[in-house]
Amino acid sequence: MTNNTNTMEREQGVLIVLSGPSGVGKGTVCAALRKMNLDLVYSVSATTRAPREGEVDGINYFFKKREQFEHMIANDELLEYAEYDGNYYGTPRRFVEDTLKDGKNIILEIEVQGALKVKQKFPEGVFIFLLPPSLDELHNRITTRGTNSVESIRNRMSVAADEIRLIEHYDYAVVNDEVEKACDKIKSIVVAERCKQERIYTKLMQWIGEVT
Amino acid sequence: MTNNTNTMEREQGVLIVLSGPSGVGKGTVCAALRKMNLDLVYSVSATTRAPREGEVDGINYFFKKREQFEHMIANDELLEYAEYDGNYYGTPRRFVEDTLKDGKNIILEIEVQGALKVKQKFPEGVFIFLLPPSLDELHNRITTRGTNSVESIRNRMSVAADEIRLIEHYDYAVVNDEVEKACDKIKSIVVAERCKQERIYTKLMQWIGEVT
Repeated sequence: MTNNTNTMEREQGVLIVLSGPSGVGKGTVCAALRKMNLDLVYSVSATTRAPREGEVDGINYFFKKREQFEHMIANDELLEYAEYDGNYYGTPRRFVEDTLKDGKNIILEIEVQGALKVKQKFPEGVFIFLLPPSLDELHNRITTRGTNSVESIRNRMSVAADEIRLIEHYDYAVVNDEVEKACDKIKSIVVAERCKQERIYTKLMQWIGEVT
Repeated sequence: MTNNTNTMEREQGVLIVLSGPSGVGKGTVCAALRKMNLDLVYSVSATTRAPREGEVDGINYFFKKREQFEHMIANDELLEYAEYDGNYYGTPRRFVEDTLKDGKNIILEIEVQGALKVKQKFPEGVFIFLLPPSLDELHNRITTRGTNSVESIRNRMSVAADEIRLIEHYDYAVVNDEVEKACDKIKSIVVAERCKQERIYTKLMQWIGEVT
């Protein structure tokens, strides 16, 4: 019999992938989560774009030369990557894995397509889809961003609808009606996921086997 | 397009089944949950035992005559039942189903075997297994309850170990190290379960279909 009251603690952290259609407020929710000082590490992306003033390597981004980044791609060192405006952006696998092994939970905020790529390489992640409270609301958010031509708005609404259809690949749906409420739900999801029976089963059976 | 900001609200509640080995503190945790005034209804058992002073029909129990109870058994009106000391005790299916249809979450505190019977009839329930922080702790709790002969304690520890092995049929494992912490975890599980993608998917696809 053991006196170690930590026997039941799970060791591995949880990878939380927060995604959702453009305009739904992923960035705002993620910024609010950071202020809550939860037991969450924020994934740091790698990029080939030049650092802006005040940006720190390893904090804001891992800044890489183009050949370094392509080497990471070739070595399967990225959970996902994409190119925008001539620069690469991607999620280094090692930073995620080291954080999880350390028993910490890590959150990755990413657009819908990127999240699905992460799922292919990391199916044990927990995939949360952020939804607008209504399509009207999404329409409003899209309209107040960038150009307002009827065609461009219609096009962006159609893209958003296509993105929402991808929710079937996600584990959870969180409605972003109020940022604070959405954050509380995400916090609950992290706590619940760490209580999943599968995460403790093998260790628990060893423990029972040792003492009976 | 709709203006109804409630469009994304899920309708059906969640059945939470809280179980665990004898002596783990299910009753204490359930009593503490009640004090937290969560959005949770507590399942009311049916019984053939006579009401004790102060007990109210429909609040403490649904008090039934033996033939009424056996009629409920025959009509499959109970999610589970058992006989103790010559009296029947069981969980009326209708009370659970009506509560869920009303959009409310309901919690059922029950011993391990009863929980497995509920799972057979209600696999969509959320099954939480309460664990002791260590087997030492469980040993202490068992020792301070009832008789203390070495054989009886050994026997009850062996029963507890057998019960713990049944955790494989459960969704979540919550360690009852501190009652308040355990309650917070259960609360998080309820919130997370209501955010499950499957609970909203069909409705969401209809909603997307209507507006695009």
